[in-house]
Amino acid sequence: MEYNVAMNGGDGPNSYTQNSKIQEESFDVTKSLLIGCIRDHLDIQKSCKVVRIADLGCSVGPNTFSCVNTIIQEVKLKFATQFPGFTSPEFQVFFNDTFCNDFNTLFNALPLDRLYMAAGVPGSFYGQLFPKGSMNFMHSSFSCHWISQVPKEVLRKDSRAWNKGRISYVRSSCEVKQAFAAQFMSDFEAFIGARSAELAPGGLIFISIPCKSNLSELSILESTDILGDAFIDMVKEGLVEEELLDSFNLPLYIPTPSEVIKLVSRDEHLNILKVEESFLEVKMSSAEDIMFESSHLRAVMEGIINKHFGPDILMDDLFHRYCNKLKEFSTQFKNYYKVGIVSVAVERVILQDELV
Amino acid sequence: MEYNVAMNGGDGPNSYTQNSKIQEESFDVTKSLLIGCIRDHLDIQKSCKVVRIADLGCSVGPNTFSCVNTIIQEVKLKFATQFPGFTSPEFQVFFNDTFCNDFNTLFNALPLDRLYMAAGVPGSFYGQLFPKGSMNFMHSSFSCHWISQVPKEVLRKDSRAWNKGRISYVRSSCEVKQAFAAQFMSDFEAFIGARSAELAPGGLIFISIPCKSNLSELSILESTDILGDAFIDMVKEGLVEEELLDSFNLPLYIPTPSEVIKLVSRDEHLNILKVEESFLEVKMSSAEDIMFESSHLRAVMEGIINKHFGPDILMDDLFHRYCNKLKEFSTQFKNYYKVGIVSVAVERVILQDELV
Repeated sequence: MEYNVAMNGGDGPNSYTQNSKIQEESFDVTKSLLIGCIRDHLDIQKSCKVVRIADLGCSVGPNTFSCVNTIIQEVKLKFATQFPGFTSPEFQVFFNDTFCNDFNTLFNALPLDRLYMAAGVPGSFYGQLFPKGSMNFMHSSFSCHWISQVPKEVLRKDSRAWNKGRISYVRSSCEVKQAFAAQFMSDFEAFIGARSAELAPGGLIFISIPCKSNLSELSILESTDILGDAFIDMVKEGLVEEELLDSFNLPLYIPTPSEVIKLVSRDEHLNILKVEESFLEVKMSSAEDIMFESSHLRAVMEGIINKHFGPDILMDDLFHRYCNKLKEFSTQFKNYYKVGIVSVAVERVILQDELV
Repeated sequence: MEYNVAMNGGDGPNSYTQNSKIQEESFDVTKSLLIGCIRDHLDIQKSCKVVRIADLGCSVGPNTFSCVNTIIQEVKLKFATQFPGFTSPEFQVFFNDTFCNDFNTLFNALPLDRLYMAAGVPGSFYGQLFPKGSMNFMHSSFSCHWISQVPKEVLRKDSRAWNKGRISYVRSSCEVKQAFAAQFMSDFEAFIGARSAELAPGGLIFISIPCKSNLSELSILESTDILGDAFIDMVKEGLVEEELLDSFNLPLYIPTPSEVIKLVSRDEHLNILKVEESFLEVKMSSAEDIMFESSHLRAVMEGIINKHFGPDILMDDLFHRYCNKLKEFSTQFKNYYKVGIVSVAVERVILQDELV
């Protein structure tokens, strides 16, 4: 069963479009690495007619356009520098996200002055999305930590990995953590396998994933987990059914950089060009910061919460409680929390047996 | 300014999805010609890895999927017959319509057992939508009679072509008819030019357009024009502002087969393989038939009417009046009306200077 939840659509006050500043900042900290990779490694031929680019897990909102714009500008610059006087290739950009992403809003927000032809591709990136060998550059930012499903065992009462009362694995047992890790491993392997097949020889993929490392003080999940505490309070007050909460877990896993590298390295068609860890500080010092963080989380989580708890869930109440919890925890966060990001730039190599 | 109106979205009782039976029947009458063209003319190589297909003006609903399915089955059969034992190419299908088409509903209705990778392409097909030379088969059914805009002169009081009180050119002056014809000529030339550039050498395009010929007794616009009479009654009763009706015209033109052929023939990269005229009988003999026709027209027209007249237009009232008018006219229609369709199958040829 394909995991089919998306960021909040539309462009209203709770939309992802209006509340994806953190993801924008994440792209900013990884941008120079991405640019460097295109400059140094993208294999572009004089005879190249079309450059096909994908943003995987594009969601809705301005980030996907600014990212694609950066990529195209760099490719154009590289082509013009390498082959002065030759006609620039055409660009075709594929915006991918799950089936319930708001593609209508995405399409209507396409920049009028764009330098590319646009297409939307609905579907899970844990399977094949494009013809084999057809893509020149693929990008995925802050997407692969959304696993394809919550591991079944964490939702089963009779399992040692039952994650009762929690919505993520952060403060859970070893068994729960292992179940989530195994799901990530299997999903990310499928992701890498699909991309490896879709990339044209010499093509590149650039992946950024929030990560947990020794250098990051707290993972992004720690703040998310506080939402679980708000849920527990609502259960205690009889506003949310206990069973409904027990059967809810967020399909999120924050890997370590080494987990990511290990899985990419396993694919014989891929060659890691560069790995970088970077950090993003999310401020938590004022009421405004806390409101900002809460709006951001709501834009991301509202769809998945609604799908599980139904339309009657008291969404305003939930996020109001979340804000209050965040205030309590802001001392622990030392007025900010640090999100680790691991970025990996990978090229598609041609094996001897493919040359036949 | 791009014309940006689409068929009714969603899948409710007034949706295009639920009310596109006439378009389905139109595809059925042209289907054998399309199949024959793929069999006899599609240039497919043993080494072909990807077949790229587009449905231009796909709208929402089952017709686009059944049409694409027919095309793919035929291409697969042709490949298997010509090159037994070779691996079938992959199929990538591009569903195109205007920006306000309901792509969300389209994507969620994609058949689960489809044999292709799907992408949605928003934008006017009167401009380039795909990279040059990249498409193997393009299809457009019942779309090109939607012109890119209402000719400006038919909306100008000081023009000899002012189309006061009418919503189409059917019963209007010569000047009005000429203005619409000129707009179609210019649009269809742009359509053909864009496709000619996008088609891969040996690729095919198959176009079906409702047409007006000596053989068809009435054009599709005659029934549509009755909607104009319903509007006039509403103006008389003060329910619709006269000025608002005067500034409204449907961006529709029903060409003759020879107009279509002339414009396709002009493009030196294209070669007409086959032209066929066919006819579709739309029954008008019972109250049920009339309700069916009215629902069909509402699914098609509601968006464009809403856009012009605003959300307060009495849509139920309008289509109730339309039904009554249709009843009056059903004798004139001899219990049915006949829609002419012209289908043209075209191949992309390679000119000498392109071989360099």
